[in-house]
Amino acid sequence: MARFDAVRATLDERGAAALAVVGDRSDPDLRYLAGFDGPDREYAVVVTRDAAVCCAPRLFERDARDAFPGRVATDEQGDPAGRRAAAALDDLGADGTVLTPRAIPHDAALYLEGAGHDVASTDAVAAARAIKTESEIERVRTVAAAAEAGIRRAAAVLGAATADGDRLRFEGAPLTTERLRRAVDAEMAGCGVDPAHNTVVGAGPSCADLHYRGDDPLRPGETILLDVSPRGPEGYHADCTRTFVVGGGGGWPRRAHVAAEMGMDAALAVLSAGAGEAASKVHTEAAAEIRAYGFPVDDGEVGFTHSIGHGVGLALHERPSTQGDAELTAGTVLTVEPGVYDPEEGGVRIEDLVVVRAEGYENLIDLPRSLDPAAYDPPDEG
Amino acid sequence: MARFDAVRATLDERGAAALAVVGDRSDPDLRYLAGFDGPDREYAVVVTRDAAVCCAPRLFERDARDAFPGRVATDEQGDPAGRRAAAALDDLGADGTVLTPRAIPHDAALYLEGAGHDVASTDAVAAARAIKTESEIERVRTVAAAAEAGIRRAAAVLGAATADGDRLRFEGAPLTTERLRRAVDAEMAGCGVDPAHNTVVGAGPSCADLHYRGDDPLRPGETILLDVSPRGPEGYHADCTRTFVVGGGGGWPRRAHVAAEMGMDAALAVLSAGAGEAASKVHTEAAAEIRAYGFPVDDGEVGFTHSIGHGVGLALHERPSTQGDAELTAGTVLTVEPGVYDPEEGGVRIEDLVVVRAEGYENLIDLPRSLDPAAYDPPDEG
Repeated sequence: MARFDAVRATLDERGAAALAVVGDRSDPDLRYLAGFDGPDREYAVVVTRDAAVCCAPRLFERDARDAFPGRVATDEQGDPAGRRAAAALDDLGADGTVLTPRAIPHDAALYLEGAGHDVASTDAVAAARAIKTESEIERVRTVAAAAEAGIRRAAAVLGAATADGDRLRFEGAPLTTERLRRAVDAEMAGCGVDPAHNTVVGAGPSCADLHYRGDDPLRPGETILLDVSPRGPEGYHADCTRTFVVGGGGGWPRRAHVAAEMGMDAALAVLSAGAGEAASKVHTEAAAEIRAYGFPVDDGEVGFTHSIGHGVGLALHERPSTQGDAELTAGTVLTVEPGVYDPEEGGVRIEDLVVVRAEGYENLIDLPRSLDPAAYDPPDEG
Repeated sequence: MARFDAVRATLDERGAAALAVVGDRSDPDLRYLAGFDGPDREYAVVVTRDAAVCCAPRLFERDARDAFPGRVATDEQGDPAGRRAAAALDDLGADGTVLTPRAIPHDAALYLEGAGHDVASTDAVAAARAIKTESEIERVRTVAAAAEAGIRRAAAVLGAATADGDRLRFEGAPLTTERLRRAVDAEMAGCGVDPAHNTVVGAGPSCADLHYRGDDPLRPGETILLDVSPRGPEGYHADCTRTFVVGGGGGWPRRAHVAAEMGMDAALAVLSAGAGEAASKVHTEAAAEIRAYGFPVDDGEVGFTHSIGHGVGLALHERPSTQGDAELTAGTVLTVEPGVYDPEEGGVRIEDLVVVRAEGYENLIDLPRSLDPAAYDPPDEG
């Protein structure tokens, strides 16, 4: 089974007997190996060179049997999952070092040690997750389409909004970041994905707060930033950002948007080379372009203040980083998100989601980049 | 600070120097102590007898300073949160045993041990979480209102559905479990809560699968079971289930529904006594009533196959259990969810969410219990 190959190569390399992962449905390593969305209670997967066992909760036995390419054990349900993992390894006759992710529950590590194993950490599962198969990419693509629908819904709301003094109104009531978030989240949920509590809407100065969750009035002429990161039914995320201005975006918003667009173009130019490029080059080229447009980089709260992107998959933030020495690999799913911020002015970010290919890249986001909500109108039919 | 009182009592009782919790936003213990929704990366809270430190991610510094009643440390961001927790304890001069939840990340426990502490497990935070303050109950109440809106939306869709042979149609297209789930999730998201990937819709036989996620056609005369468990913006969940039949529910659905309703009445009669009753009595009284109506209890896949309820809060499933020897406490938030299943027939469950009070209980769910979607129509105004 492909998803166990990297684990087994690591067992060979480290001279280890097995890998054990214990967690709940919030653990992407466990989700990856199990192949199904488990419960909010602990379960476990163990992998040896020639076998794999999922110690599943009984309520999820059917899901486990459908999805897991190995034995499904539903005995000893009352025990902690770490103890069940140790028992599964005992059944398999695994003898020697057991590798685990560093953040395995402490009690699970103690059960494994108590059963006579040395426990040592590995990042083999996280490393395997960073390279997606075509079927994983297809799942991300489906979620990305729902993210696009969310952004288009925001554009439709903003396009229909009217100015009332220095506030925007929509359908007879004031428009705020929370109201816009609800409209967008409802649209995405209607597409079958979960907003996953990740939708960020900023208005003017709060656009510079990268995780803003408050409720601000929306105003004409100010930046309105929308970042959506829904999670699909199979556990994969997408990630997409657009920034809008209602009623004309001159001055700072326009300058910031041009810089972000040029940063995007520079980043995508690096990605055009496909696999083999240094991930950090995507960042440095975008940063150089943004700096050339007169905005500071990595200089506190003003300018381009974060990295150009991150991997996306079963976790919203996963490998690769664009700050270290990782190399782009075919099958990497990466955000490209140049942004320019100024807590006195607002913030502009444009974020696409791409797949690195052997040659070039594929952009999973098919949306305009414009500040103008009208640019997002669906094309005329017929 | 109230939320640290139980922790400090445990430190005294155990003769321990500190409590350390390390996790990410999926960890309800950490969410409880920190008071804010952190990122999908690790952070930490440490509590001693006279101080508390939140080792927060820099991006969430503002949230931490607003919500955390102690020091917020944003130094050494590159380090694992376990190492930062150990450094915070060193700054505080904490010397001795450090208590942690049993599932603290293993590497965090090793950092604490490496700093000279004995690490011992405690469930003090989970125990404290089980007793809600009025402000926590208010948050659950808000999420419960959104859950009700989701159920009412399903009833409206089903009430407008028409039979086409042995299938239901709605707005010109076949109605399925997935289509109904999307309509309900969109409604809840529009109310400002996250469906949290928890919405379960069953149709006929699949109602007997308690975590069914597939896509089945909806049919007249069959049970249609809807279980919603959204998560609110402050992290608290609600949990509510109703079962519908379109086009007359005689026969098995009617008998099962009467048994579930009688089980609900029996459970609520126990809860009328308020704090001090054994939680298990809520289960046994409901089970006895369901058995009296001719359905088996705890007998494989047919009849009342699960427990009557569970605590709800920052985790969807938390203390108390209705199976052990816990006593109901004022401030307990508990599901009451009698159900009757038969994989040959379908499944009926009715689930309310109650707060145990010193005298009696308060039901946070204000919905009819009927199988008939028309019973859920909003009351006429005026």
